[in-house]
Amino acid sequence: MTYCVGLNLKHGLIFMSDTRTNAGLDNISVFRKMHSWEIPGERVITLLTAGNLATTQAVISLLEERNKSADERIPYLLQAPSTFQAAQIVADTLREVIARQAETGQKADSTFNATIILGGQIKGGAPRLFLIYPEGNFIEAGNDTPFFQIGETKYGRPILVRAYDPDMSVEDAIKLLTVSFDSTVKANLSVSPPFDIQIIEKDSYRLGRSWRMEADDPYYTTVSQNWGEALKAALESLPAFHFD
Amino acid sequence: MTYCVGLNLKHGLIFMSDTRTNAGLDNISVFRKMHSWEIPGERVITLLTAGNLATTQAVISLLEERNKSADERIPYLLQAPSTFQAAQIVADTLREVIARQAETGQKADSTFNATIILGGQIKGGAPRLFLIYPEGNFIEAGNDTPFFQIGETKYGRPILVRAYDPDMSVEDAIKLLTVSFDSTVKANLSVSPPFDIQIIEKDSYRLGRSWRMEADDPYYTTVSQNWGEALKAALESLPAFHFD
Repeated sequence: MTYCVGLNLKHGLIFMSDTRTNAGLDNISVFRKMHSWEIPGERVITLLTAGNLATTQAVISLLEERNKSADERIPYLLQAPSTFQAAQIVADTLREVIARQAETGQKADSTFNATIILGGQIKGGAPRLFLIYPEGNFIEAGNDTPFFQIGETKYGRPILVRAYDPDMSVEDAIKLLTVSFDSTVKANLSVSPPFDIQIIEKDSYRLGRSWRMEADDPYYTTVSQNWGEALKAALESLPAFHFD
Repeated sequence: MTYCVGLNLKHGLIFMSDTRTNAGLDNISVFRKMHSWEIPGERVITLLTAGNLATTQAVISLLEERNKSADERIPYLLQAPSTFQAAQIVADTLREVIARQAETGQKADSTFNATIILGGQIKGGAPRLFLIYPEGNFIEAGNDTPFFQIGETKYGRPILVRAYDPDMSVEDAIKLLTVSFDSTVKANLSVSPPFDIQIIEKDSYRLGRSWRMEADDPYYTTVSQNWGEALKAALESLPAFHFD
């Protein structure tokens, strides 16, 4: 599995993804699940991918190739007039890849499906965040659900639901994401550091800070060690239960 | 879906289960998923069930009937010499019911599977807790994993993993379970109050306190309202993230 989150904050977009892929429990590897394209000053687009690795790699490669061969008739990501159109291009590419693999008549233990979070900003529009389904349709994050998760989403969801605030600072959002990822890692073997983190500041039209948080990252280990205690203290702070 | 938890504490066993069942989103009902048998002073056994409702009801009915017709040759729950043997009887009954439904050749949208937590104490033995799989095999909670969850387990797991302590008081355990259930209810429509709660005190060999926590239960609503704030405060208490 995988765990990726995209947050839409007042300050911009923040992405975080783990890097574990596994084909069976004894075949695990580190793969980057975060991919970005930019024309500084004009547009920036980031994808987070979850699902079949062959599918997601094919989607990324096709998007890359089409960006490079500008004479192809298929509209490409760096020409899309809006993030909505960019999401449409990615969605079409995803559907195309899945359909091609399904067509061969081969059967796999798992499906060829994949899910993608797309976030970015193109000059003339606001920062936007989309969730693209394997069927090739997609939804946009609104004010009511201003973040998307893909992959192994459940363990890390309660803290996001309770503590996410669109006005929060970038630093607070990274703290929140670190806790959400740590809760998932503690509960599920298929999600693991290192984590890739990226920030796209609103109206910057370029990739912002982007780094990899390793398993021995001092901030990650501090959060991981302290969160258990903090949770216990939170539980402690609730009114005690008493029998009548 | 369903959410049920069985905890093995130094003080005894605690069980909690939700009551929502659904066949589609527009067909939801309240059903009890907690079933107990006792011979006061000698034995007490509680089951929590998750999965296909027809399957779990058939299992409970068969166990009930066999308890009543003492002359049947199949060993029954109230005669099992140990909780291990009781778990074996329940597991065999579960496998039998699933096999019978699969035999008809009918296809259902969902499977006929079910999973069961069995906990109890029979004179001569310690309180024990088992997790019974649809295949009819089962595992026992040990010192390293002293609780079991079934159904929609992921949302409520992080708090259990971090805050469970076998030495905790019964009251603290109920607080912990209330938070775990609330986190699940907040994230998943298929789990809902009222919740059934039951306590089996160690070496009491009888059902202890047992009650239903309704959606408007004052303690539940207090925990539900305060947990969001408590979580935010916990997050606040962690060291802030700083860019270098």
